[in-house]
Amino acid sequence: MTAVSSSFVPSEVEGREVGRQRVSTSLDTNGIRTQFPGLANNWHYLDTAATAQKPQAVIDATVAAMGRDYATVHRGVYARSADMTLAYEAARRRIAAFIGAKDEQIAFVRGATEAINLVAYSHPRKGRVLLSALEHHSNIVPWQLAGWQVDVCPLTADGCIDLDAAERLLTPEHNMVAFAHVSNVLGSPLDVARAAEIAHRVGAELLIDGCQAVPRLPVDVAALGCDYYVFSGHKLYGPTGIGVLWSDKLDTLPPWQGGGSMIDRVTFEKTTYAPAPTRFEAGTPAIIEAIGLAAAVDYVEAIGIEAIHAHECALVGTLREALARKNSITLFGPENSAGIVSFAMAGVHPHDIGTILDESRVAIRAGHHCAQPLMEHLGVPATARASFGVYSNDDDVAALIDGLARVERIFG
Amino acid sequence: MTAVSSSFVPSEVEGREVGRQRVSTSLDTNGIRTQFPGLANNWHYLDTAATAQKPQAVIDATVAAMGRDYATVHRGVYARSADMTLAYEAARRRIAAFIGAKDEQIAFVRGATEAINLVAYSHPRKGRVLLSALEHHSNIVPWQLAGWQVDVCPLTADGCIDLDAAERLLTPEHNMVAFAHVSNVLGSPLDVARAAEIAHRVGAELLIDGCQAVPRLPVDVAALGCDYYVFSGHKLYGPTGIGVLWSDKLDTLPPWQGGGSMIDRVTFEKTTYAPAPTRFEAGTPAIIEAIGLAAAVDYVEAIGIEAIHAHECALVGTLREALARKNSITLFGPENSAGIVSFAMAGVHPHDIGTILDESRVAIRAGHHCAQPLMEHLGVPATARASFGVYSNDDDVAALIDGLARVERIFG
Repeated sequence: MTAVSSSFVPSEVEGREVGRQRVSTSLDTNGIRTQFPGLANNWHYLDTAATAQKPQAVIDATVAAMGRDYATVHRGVYARSADMTLAYEAARRRIAAFIGAKDEQIAFVRGATEAINLVAYSHPRKGRVLLSALEHHSNIVPWQLAGWQVDVCPLTADGCIDLDAAERLLTPEHNMVAFAHVSNVLGSPLDVARAAEIAHRVGAELLIDGCQAVPRLPVDVAALGCDYYVFSGHKLYGPTGIGVLWSDKLDTLPPWQGGGSMIDRVTFEKTTYAPAPTRFEAGTPAIIEAIGLAAAVDYVEAIGIEAIHAHECALVGTLREALARKNSITLFGPENSAGIVSFAMAGVHPHDIGTILDESRVAIRAGHHCAQPLMEHLGVPATARASFGVYSNDDDVAALIDGLARVERIFG
Repeated sequence: MTAVSSSFVPSEVEGREVGRQRVSTSLDTNGIRTQFPGLANNWHYLDTAATAQKPQAVIDATVAAMGRDYATVHRGVYARSADMTLAYEAARRRIAAFIGAKDEQIAFVRGATEAINLVAYSHPRKGRVLLSALEHHSNIVPWQLAGWQVDVCPLTADGCIDLDAAERLLTPEHNMVAFAHVSNVLGSPLDVARAAEIAHRVGAELLIDGCQAVPRLPVDVAALGCDYYVFSGHKLYGPTGIGVLWSDKLDTLPPWQGGGSMIDRVTFEKTTYAPAPTRFEAGTPAIIEAIGLAAAVDYVEAIGIEAIHAHECALVGTLREALARKNSITLFGPENSAGIVSFAMAGVHPHDIGTILDESRVAIRAGHHCAQPLMEHLGVPATARASFGVYSNDDDVAALIDGLARVERIFG
C-alpha cells in the first residue's frame, strides 16, 4: 500500500505550473481511492477535517460485527458473547497501542466532545482553565457549562497557540490547560511537550484535543506528557458514534454517567463503582463502532501514519503555494499546517465559494468551523477550508484551484 | 412478511406435548430468520432483551451510509452533505413517528442510559424521584450520581410495579417518577397512563424507560401521557451507539453536554444555545447509526409491532407453561410478561444453566441483569432469563426446554 512514487509532477493549474517541485506524494492514492466507496463517484472530497471517508476494511469489519459475530459484551455466558467481549477489548488494546497507551487508560466515549465534557464535569477540582483563542467549540463550551472559569491564551501572528503567552498567563490558580493538538481551522500544530511542561510547572493538568492530530501525525501520549488526550473515531476513518478519552490518571476521576456495567454494587442506599475505564462506560457500549474503529487503526497503520503525514504536508505545500499566487486570496494559518488550509477570497463569501466549487464536484467546508472565537480573532465571519486525507491527491488540489478561478470569473 | 399460520402445533418437548393450544405464531419466522445474518449458524438466540440481532436491511442501510452516501451533516455547503443532513433528519422523523411523536421532540443520544443521565443531570429542579424496585441500574444510578433523593416503590407479588403503593408514596415533594415500561428481568408491563395520572396528581413528571417496550409493544407517547420516554437503538434491531430521548418539554431542559452544533453563538464571555433537540446533540452525531435505526424501524413496521407483540406473547405463554411443569423451576414475573421470562432451577446456579445450555447452542442470559436491587427483592443472587424477538420460534423454546432437561440430568 505504500508504493513510493518519486516522480516530480509538473502539474498544470490554471494554465500555470504549480511548480516542478516534488508535488506530493509517496502514497499510491489511485490505489487507495479504490478502497473508499465514498469516493466512488470520483469527486474531490476536501472536507476530511469535518469527517473522513471510510475504507472498505472498516465497512467490512462493521458488517461482520453487526451480523455474523453480533452479541452483547461483558455479560453473556454463551460463547458468542464471550467472543464479542474479546473482540471489544482487543479493539481497545489496538487503539490504545496506536497512541502509545495502555488499554486500561482508554475509555470509549461517543466522540471527542463527550470526552471533554466528561473531564470538565467529572473533574474533582473544577477551577480555572486556560484555553486558546483557536479552540473548537467542543473545547470551550463544556468548560463553560461545567462551571470552570475560562481564561484565553492568544495566538501568534501565523495562528499558532502562543506558548510564551501561555507561560506568562498561567498561575498556580489554574488547574487545567486545554489546547488543540492541531487546529481544525488553521492546521496549526502544537508543541504538546512544551505545553505540558508549562502547565505542569504551575500544577495544572493538560488536556489535548487530538481530533485533527491523530489522523495526521504520529501520536505517542507517553512521550507528549499531557494528562488527557481525546479524539473522535469518525475523523480517523472510523465509524461515527465512537471516540476515545485517554488518561494515565483515569482512576482519579469520579464516575460521571451512571448505568449498567459501570458499577460494582448497586443498592438504593449506596452504589459503588467499577475501576476505570469501565466506570466511564455506562450502558451497552458502542460495540460495533469500537470494532470498526480498530479496523480503521489497522488501515492507517498498514499505510503508515508517517507516510500519511508526509503526504498531507506535501499537499498543503502545493495548495498554499498555488493559493499564495492568487491576489484575491488571503491565506490563514502557519506554513507548516497539518493537512488543513483555510483561506478567504476578497469580496466573495466563503459559502458562495463552497457552493460554486460544489458544481465542479469539489467539496470544501465554508463557515465558522465551530470556532467562532477564532473567526472573531481573524476578523472574518467565516473561512473557506480545504482539508486532506490519505486519499487526497494533486488532482484534488488542481480541481480546487480551477474551481477558484471559476469563482473569480463569476464574481468578476 | 406477515404470513399467518393458523395451525395448531402439537410440539413434543421432552417427550411430552407442550400442549395442543395454538403454540405461537402468526409470523413466518423461517423467512424472517434468513434476514438476520447473526442467526446464520442456526443457534437458539434467547438473549434479545440484552441486544437484538440486526436484519440485513439495517446492515445494508449502514453500509450505504458509511460508504456511497457518507458525509457530515448540518455543515457542508456541498450536495452530499446536504443530502446526508436530509437523511439524518428524515431518520429522526421516521423514528419519532414510530412512537407517535413530533420530530423536534426527539434527541439522539448514545442510548437509554445517556438519555436518563441527560434528564437527571440537566433537570432544572433536582429533588425527589420515585423509582421502582425492579429498575435497571441505568434508571437508578444516574439519579444517585446527579444528586436526587431516591425513593423506592415496591412491587406486587407477581413482580409488577405496585401503582397503588406509588399512589400512597408520592407527595408534593416529589418532582419525578421514573419507571420501566417493561421490566428487563421479568417482562412486567406497566400501565403507563395510570402512572402518569398518579405522578401528575402530585405535580411530578414521569420518565419511562422504554428499552424493552419499544421493540415489543405498540408505543404512542402522546397517548401514554408521560413526560419523558427513552430507549436504545440496539434493542430495536438497530445499531449500537444510538438511542432516543423523547419529551414534549425538551425546551424546558437546559443544555447538558457542550460542543459543536448545539450552540447559537459562542464567545469566551457568554455562549447561547440552539433550540431543542439540537441543543442536546453536541458534536458530530451518530449519523450512520441514526440512519441504521430508521431502517430498523422500517423493518419492524413492515412486519407490524402488533404482530411481533402477539408473537412474543404466544412464545412466552408456551415457555411459561412448559417451565411450570418442571418441579425444579421457579418462575418469576407475571403471566402477561412481554417477551421476557426469568426463572431459577433448584440447586443450580443460573450461570451453570447458561453454560450448559450454550453447549446445546441455546443462548440465554444468566446474572443480575443490571438489576441488583430486584435480585435482592426476589431473594436470589441471579436469575436465568430467556427473551424473545421477532425471529424467535417454537424450536427455540423446545431447545431451551430440552437443554434444561440436560441441566437437570447433569445436576442430578
